[in-house]
This record gives sequence, structure tokens and C-alpha cells, in this order.
Amino acid sequence: MVTAHARQPQHNPVMTSPTVLAFDVFGTVVDWHGSIVRELHQLYPRVDGDAFALAWRAGYQPAMQRVRSGELGWTRIDDLHRLILDDLLPEFGLAHLNEAQRVHLNRVWHRLHAWPDAVQGLQLLKQQHTICTLSNGNMGLLTNMAKQASLPWDCILSAEVFRAYKPDPATYLGVAHTFDVPPEQVMLVAAHQDDLDSARACGLQTAYIERPLEFGAAHVKDVSPSPHNTLHATDFVHLARQLSQG
Amino acid sequence: MVTAHARQPQHNPVMTSPTVLAFDVFGTVVDWHGSIVRELHQLYPRVDGDAFALAWRAGYQPAMQRVRSGELGWTRIDDLHRLILDDLLPEFGLAHLNEAQRVHLNRVWHRLHAWPDAVQGLQLLKQQHTICTLSNGNMGLLTNMAKQASLPWDCILSAEVFRAYKPDPATYLGVAHTFDVPPEQVMLVAAHQDDLDSARACGLQTAYIERPLEFGAAHVKDVSPSPHNTLHATDFVHLARQLSQG
Repeated sequence: MVTAHARQPQHNPVMTSPTVLAFDVFGTVVDWHGSIVRELHQLYPRVDGDAFALAWRAGYQPAMQRVRSGELGWTRIDDLHRLILDDLLPEFGLAHLNEAQRVHLNRVWHRLHAWPDAVQGLQLLKQQHTICTLSNGNMGLLTNMAKQASLPWDCILSAEVFRAYKPDPATYLGVAHTFDVPPEQVMLVAAHQDDLDSARACGLQTAYIERPLEFGAAHVKDVSPSPHNTLHATDFVHLARQLSQG
Repeated sequence: MVTAHARQPQHNPVMTSPTVLAFDVFGTVVDWHGSIVRELHQLYPRVDGDAFALAWRAGYQPAMQRVRSGELGWTRIDDLHRLILDDLLPEFGLAHLNEAQRVHLNRVWHRLHAWPDAVQGLQLLKQQHTICTLSNGNMGLLTNMAKQASLPWDCILSAEVFRAYKPDPATYLGVAHTFDVPPEQVMLVAAHQDDLDSARACGLQTAYIERPLEFGAAHVKDVSPSPHNTLHATDFVHLARQLSQG
């Protein structure tokens, strides 16, 4: 049972104001579920967009695991998304899609929409901090997404740069190394506790962002605070407010 | 002798409008000479800033050569700049600088000023193209510079990402690979013919930018057009105008 007390946001003191804010992207900055459902509805209205989006995303961790285990060599998320998609299409009655249609659909991940607070929040956060991505998405995907969704990154960093997927420490520590700062001057911002846990184990500060609708309105996500995070925010604007008071 | 005809800008047809414009940075986007002279004049007014800036920059290619030859392992430009600086200080009567002063002075490369047309030109070019850096400068340096000088990159790419300095083909082809486009959909924009020659050899389109004052007003640079470049522009706004007519 989740008590009222346990749901109270935690306010651990920020030890040092972070120089760099590194953002998880899928689910934290952009609404992958809603964006995929919307596009599928337009392209293939008879397909269950909710189930399709969830199945596509569910293939993500196992696909990365095939790279981590060495079964696949280094592979970009674009290519992993495509492997999963090709497996998925027959299950949803879309086995007939031709190559151009598959390429186009796979690029939906480049066209994901930002959560409503994201652009304003990033603009605020950018005034006091260096803001960058730290995503398993590849550089091209993240750049196209930023251009389309007007995400004002100072720098795009990706698993592709570090040749390792999160939660490999090389990714979290890679951000600190890139900006030549100690890990505690970097804060990971994410809507996923496991990502934050891994960052914290590397010495980063952590901020949890509530994205209760990440998996769609039919699958509301538990966004309870963890006492281990440095900050807990309802959205990016709330995070900016907390950091400016820190 | 340079004839009037030879100095006439060339207008080779753009084969395909480039998807990505990749910019050389030092000298092309930012005025390293003028910025270093200005800072030195403020910090150490008795030093010959012009000679100091030229000597620092002159150490750049030999320092990278030590990495290319294997004498040094992979080294960031920040660290190469520091090696050169430490060698240089005694020659200019600055051997007494302490560690903090050296660190601060070395970071002048993060604080370089943009050429007057750069921000406006990049904003225009960004409307139709993906604009990124392709510099031997490290990611942190380029990010800090962009933040300070308001350079609106869609993406920062660097020798550091490709673990190779220009003119290694891995850098030029790395841009095309990052954005999953053929090399001819990438245009290198630079104020240096040798950089453009190397990019062209990899199949990229090339645009030469005139920066006659790159080495200071006392050392005006020859900015004659080469018939081999796709475009030749006086500055970024001129480049934007040519590309929008292409």
C-alpha cells in the first residue's frame, strides 16, 4: 500500500548546483506511446495502436540485450527498432508493408512529440545549466527529433558516442568526462527509477520526472518518489523552479 | 599573378541540395585570432597578443601530428592546447603563471567570439538544413563555445566522436553515417581549402567561406576561389542566399 507520506515528494538538498543536466529522452522528454498511437491511427486506422506501441517498445530492452551479450555487434537503435518492427508487423496484420512503408514507419521514432512542458522547461533550465541528451537513441535520431520538436539542446550525447547503452557506467561517466567535470556536477533527469539508480551508482545527482501517461492513459504508471533521488519533479518547469531555488 | 578572372567566384551547380551542412569551426565560425588577442590584452597587456595567438595556433597541427603518429595516445584538443601553451609561456615572459591562471587562459578556446555574420547565417541555414559542427575541437569545448556565442547547432560533432582528427576520412564520412545519408548529401563549410579538398575526396559537397582576417589584420589571408568547390561565399548569409536559390 502506498501511504500519503510515502507519496510526499522528497527534497534532498542539492549538494552542488549541477553544471550539466543530462536527459533521458524516450518517455522523459517525448511521448513515444502517444506519438506512435497517433501516427498509426492516421496510417493504419484498423491497427490497435496502443498494443502496437507497447509491443514495439517492449522489444527494446531484449534487442539491446542481444548487443550487450555480443550476439549482435554494435547496432544503432534505428536498426534495432527496425528488427523489432519487422517481427511485429505480421502480428498486427501489416505483413504486406513494402520497404518504403517500413522505412517511413520506423522513422516515427525521429518524429516523436515532446511532452507539453518540455520545450518551455528546457529553455528555462538552459539559462543556468548545460542541457544535453543521454539516450540510447542514435545521434541522427536524436538530432532529427530535436529539430522537429524544437528541443533546444546545448549538445546531443548518445549511447552511440560512448559505444555502450545505458545502464553501462561508460554512458553516465561519459557525460562527466565530456564536460570535464566530476560526476556529482552532472544530474541525470529521467522518468525511470532504474536509469536514475544506475546514474547515482556512478556518482551523478538524479532528478525523477513524473510521466504517469508514458504507457498511455490505459496503463497509468506509478510515479511515487524515491527517497534516493536528489530531486523529484512533476515536470521540467517544476524542476527548473526547484533548481533555481537550490 | 592573380587575374581578375581567376578571382571571380565560381558557381558550380549544387548537384543535390545538401541535407546536412557540417561546419569547420576555428577560423570559419569563430575568430580565434581576434578573440585571443583581445583576452590577452586584457589579462597581460604587455604581451604581443598577435604573435602569441599565431604561435599558439601554429602549434596545433604539429601537436595533432604527435597523436596521428602514435607518439601520443588519443588526446583532446583542450589537452593539446595546454601542452602548446605550457611550451609557449616562457617565450612570452609568462612562465610565472600558476595552474589556475593557465587553466583559465587555456579555456579561451571555449570563449572564442563568432564572426559577425555567423549567428544570423546559421539561423537562416538551419531553416532548410541540419547544421552541425565538424571540428577537431572536443565536444565540451564546442558546446561551451556554442552556448557562449549563441551558435544554434542542431548537433555538435567532433573528432572526439570519431576518434580521428580531420583530415581523416573517418570524420567526413562519419557525418554522413551519423545522419544515414550518402556523402553527397553532406556539404562541408570551411575557410580552409585543404579541409575542403579532403572532404571532396570523400564525396562531400564543399563551400568555401572567405575569412580574410583569420590571422589578423596584419596577415590578410588569400581567399581566392577554387574551381573545385561547389560554392564560394563571402560569409554565412551569402551562403544561405546561394543555397536557397539552388
